[in-house]
Amino acid sequence: MTGNALLERRLDELYAIGAEPDGGGGAYRPLYGSAWAAAGERVERWMKDAGLETRRDAVGNLWGRIEGTGKSIVTGSHIDTVRHGGRLDGALGIVAGLSAVEALLKANGKPKRPLEVVAICEEEGSRFKTSFWGSHAITGTIDTVDPEIAAAMRELGLDPAKVASAARDDIDTFVELHIEQGAVLESSGTPLAIVSAIVGTAHLEVTVTGRSDHAGTTPMDLRLDALAGAAAMVQAVESIAKSLGRPAVATVGKLEVEPDQINVVPGKVVFIADLRHPDLAGRRALEERVRSLCGTIASERGLGLDIRMLQERPPVPMHSDVRALLARAATDCGVQAAELVSGAGHDAQILAARMKVGMLFVPSIGGRSHCPDEATNPRDLELGTRVLAKALELMAY
Amino acid sequence: MTGNALLERRLDELYAIGAEPDGGGGAYRPLYGSAWAAAGERVERWMKDAGLETRRDAVGNLWGRIEGTGKSIVTGSHIDTVRHGGRLDGALGIVAGLSAVEALLKANGKPKRPLEVVAICEEEGSRFKTSFWGSHAITGTIDTVDPEIAAAMRELGLDPAKVASAARDDIDTFVELHIEQGAVLESSGTPLAIVSAIVGTAHLEVTVTGRSDHAGTTPMDLRLDALAGAAAMVQAVESIAKSLGRPAVATVGKLEVEPDQINVVPGKVVFIADLRHPDLAGRRALEERVRSLCGTIASERGLGLDIRMLQERPPVPMHSDVRALLARAATDCGVQAAELVSGAGHDAQILAARMKVGMLFVPSIGGRSHCPDEATNPRDLELGTRVLAKALELMAY
Repeated sequence: MTGNALLERRLDELYAIGAEPDGGGGAYRPLYGSAWAAAGERVERWMKDAGLETRRDAVGNLWGRIEGTGKSIVTGSHIDTVRHGGRLDGALGIVAGLSAVEALLKANGKPKRPLEVVAICEEEGSRFKTSFWGSHAITGTIDTVDPEIAAAMRELGLDPAKVASAARDDIDTFVELHIEQGAVLESSGTPLAIVSAIVGTAHLEVTVTGRSDHAGTTPMDLRLDALAGAAAMVQAVESIAKSLGRPAVATVGKLEVEPDQINVVPGKVVFIADLRHPDLAGRRALEERVRSLCGTIASERGLGLDIRMLQERPPVPMHSDVRALLARAATDCGVQAAELVSGAGHDAQILAARMKVGMLFVPSIGGRSHCPDEATNPRDLELGTRVLAKALELMAY
Repeated sequence: MTGNALLERRLDELYAIGAEPDGGGGAYRPLYGSAWAAAGERVERWMKDAGLETRRDAVGNLWGRIEGTGKSIVTGSHIDTVRHGGRLDGALGIVAGLSAVEALLKANGKPKRPLEVVAICEEEGSRFKTSFWGSHAITGTIDTVDPEIAAAMRELGLDPAKVASAARDDIDTFVELHIEQGAVLESSGTPLAIVSAIVGTAHLEVTVTGRSDHAGTTPMDLRLDALAGAAAMVQAVESIAKSLGRPAVATVGKLEVEPDQINVVPGKVVFIADLRHPDLAGRRALEERVRSLCGTIASERGLGLDIRMLQERPPVPMHSDVRALLARAATDCGVQAAELVSGAGHDAQILAARMKVGMLFVPSIGGRSHCPDEATNPRDLELGTRVLAKALELMAY
């Protein structure tokens, strides 16, 4: 079996573990669940077959290691999924990392530096009120363990009191292959990208207050229609991001109308604007323009306006050394990789606090992700794995 | 006690019957409930005190009559309320009608034609899945009685099998004094209006279909955002009605987003556009422009669009003879009444099928209605009652 066929077969095997029983399709491997445990056992067997020494840390991150000198070079991804998750998100980074290490061991023998593959226990936040659980443990940034998570850990024989022991200060670089989860690479015909940064996010909750009036008896010129005002703001959020251009994105995904009755002019609308940009100045410019334009619209229409920051996460740049190294690895493999910002969050943004981090993206067909449609051309998967292997070789040998 | 003081006191008395116990305030007198029955008994006592002969028809409409020759001249309104209803909606038409008839009897003695005051049992549809129950009975247009309504009728000794007996073919004219429930009269400083027509209504359900995408990984130019499209349509609905000018109104009061998640580009939005105009051509022009502009927006954005008519009610003009008579009555009382379209529905639109109908509106302070804030300047109530009495005099004496 060629390396590529093995990669595809292993992805199929993982995808079959936790297959959703209902009509929605896809797989679901929530943290500490039975599908999650079964997938970990399968990966551990593959690691052992490849000659890696395996261990589980205190939160259940699975590590496979080839010994060497100095700080570790690590690759991998998360093993958990969202509900109705796809075949590649997370799984690809683990399976491709293992394939890359196997290929290096076969071609070059033992590395100079320790070389590790990790199956991170959780990233998606699809079971408990947490996310980046595995990478927070690796960076030693878990302060308290939620009782519900602690109970689930104990069922699997993991001791919640020991989470601090999962922290690592002996990792030099973490590099991850992931699917893009968007359609930028596919639409530009590019097979591979080096991530430059993971975007910063701001969630602004916007409350627009007008006056509930009878939809029949209130002439248009005597209304204070909260929804008509909010609609203008939704339009503004979209056009601000469009006018700033890529990589700025702004989305109103959640919107509620009060009283939400057919024959009543809406008195109140609450919506949330999700604003993302890879650099802090850009993210702030986006926020400032949204605040300003919403203010103008509200005052022109005599509406009340309240804007509250629900959540704010700074952008995280990928390490310049790792980006340069990934670019060199791509060139060595005969491909010109694009540079791309990640609009979604990844473990690398947490791990960046304690180590050098970098990421490779392969195209997502139709931009689909977090659903059974999630797919990437096998040629692209093979190329991504080859560039990952080359990068690991450049760092560990 | 002057006629005006009596009018105000009777309005207070009715408002106290069915006072809502909870924090929202206002009164609630749902059809066939105990507050509804108590209010009816109070009105019947007033009718008898005024020398009217009273009777209840098969659905519980309460009639107070002074005998005469030929077809009846009738005034009145509905006695039921919405939840947290105000002091004037419905109640005013009954109390003012009774005051007017009392004043006429005192000043002029017995009328030539039969003169009647009616407390219509139900108009609001706030208890059962019906509305205009009383006026449908009067026009003989009730085909079947819902079992839930029938049970409530039997509890009060009303026989559901006899609803057909409530039909009247001996009414010449029905005229009603009502509050405007909007702010047109107040904002133009006009104390009285003659209703020219009750608007036609169309409820269009608009379904906008885009594609759910990750809010972080999908660049603005690769999105099919159903909410951004729907927001443009909401804006269009508003600006079409504004550009057509009074009396056209168009409202999006109800809107739902799917999947309604902060970090997901909306894949689907369903909203309902409530379109009203007093003439059919105007209502259709409104609908046509909304359909056309929504179509343009959807196709420009590559969104799916489905528009479905949920409900369509034709406009009902008030009878030209009654409008002319009301204008004359107003002039006789020294006031120049405005002409106004009713944006809300009223019993007159049902009764129009079997008799001549007309309505007078007095201003609503701040346009407030269907809430405890519902109020009208006592001067305006007195004027409205005086013009109503003059109109009844012109018709019945």
